[in-house]
Amino acid sequence: MYPNKLNQLIEALTLLPGVGIKTAERYALALLEKDESITINLAAMLVEARKSLKPCPICHNITDLKICSLCSSETVDKSIICVVSDPKEVFSIQKMNHYHGQYHVLGGLISTHKGVLPQDLNIESLIKRLDGSVNEVILGLNATVEGEMTALYISKKLEGLVKVSRLAFGLSSVGNLDYADELSLMKAFEGRRKI
Amino acid sequence: MYPNKLNQLIEALTLLPGVGIKTAERYALALLEKDESITINLAAMLVEARKSLKPCPICHNITDLKICSLCSSETVDKSIICVVSDPKEVFSIQKMNHYHGQYHVLGGLISTHKGVLPQDLNIESLIKRLDGSVNEVILGLNATVEGEMTALYISKKLEGLVKVSRLAFGLSSVGNLDYADELSLMKAFEGRRKI
Repeated sequence: MYPNKLNQLIEALTLLPGVGIKTAERYALALLEKDESITINLAAMLVEARKSLKPCPICHNITDLKICSLCSSETVDKSIICVVSDPKEVFSIQKMNHYHGQYHVLGGLISTHKGVLPQDLNIESLIKRLDGSVNEVILGLNATVEGEMTALYISKKLEGLVKVSRLAFGLSSVGNLDYADELSLMKAFEGRRKI
Repeated sequence: MYPNKLNQLIEALTLLPGVGIKTAERYALALLEKDESITINLAAMLVEARKSLKPCPICHNITDLKICSLCSSETVDKSIICVVSDPKEVFSIQKMNHYHGQYHVLGGLISTHKGVLPQDLNIESLIKRLDGSVNEVILGLNATVEGEMTALYISKKLEGLVKVSRLAFGLSSVGNLDYADELSLMKAFEGRRKI
């Protein structure tokens, strides 16, 4: 029903996560209504970002440099590595401005459901980074089945090589106790500390 | 915090309707994880669609032809014009496959709130189309304040020139026309009344 080029654009937009046909239609038609330069600019940004951004060869975080700014930084604490599943978690933790160590991006989590095996993740390269200067590996992984499984696998792998810790789970500091999900509540009880 | 190119891409993506920073981040990072060809293809589709799709000079619907396929069609009923605010409504009505007349896309609705005046819409070009071969103009406008105001304005303008009717509200009065199911749309066509 739509002109061909519009159908093709709509189809291409459905490849964005969580975007179905209706949303893709809305995006496509909104872009056609806006000034032409906006769409041309978006297209250019897509190409530039895709071509210039690559995983850092050390920590696998996204970077536009040969080695990412965190891995090449002089001020980062080299004795500690925080392991996360995806680049956006590096940025979330950096925003907090409280952790000043290194990172290691796994590129996903072990998942029997999605068929992601340990060898699909950046685990070997994490082990290679443990050259004696690293004292602690913090696992910054979600409390999901996949997160737990991955944390367990990595902690076994690193046993005897380095101290391995895990981020504390508990109640969100902005939410009410009666709104907390059961898993968070359970984790909060398990992780309770003497005061 | 993000590399520059990534920030620029995220910012460009927030120009999509209803997309804030968090969603734009998700889209950008998902595209970086996918195969490079997917992003390059999306960028190409954006440029091609934006360059090849223009409003039809007669009905103002989006087309990749000089005159849109509906305006140049031999089988379309030339005695009737359905007036809609946006191109996506033409496509919604066409999907129903019940209405076989012409269309006229206003390019918006009169809105004191958004400062859209009658002269900002394709109303003069609608009047020019009433050359005697057209017997009826159906106003396919939403039941919002803006829709009502626009319907009133156009029906006054066309008074004495042509029979003007309005889609019946079999349409849900809370939803937008382009989200209506096909049956409601069909009922709305059948139940249209003269105004």
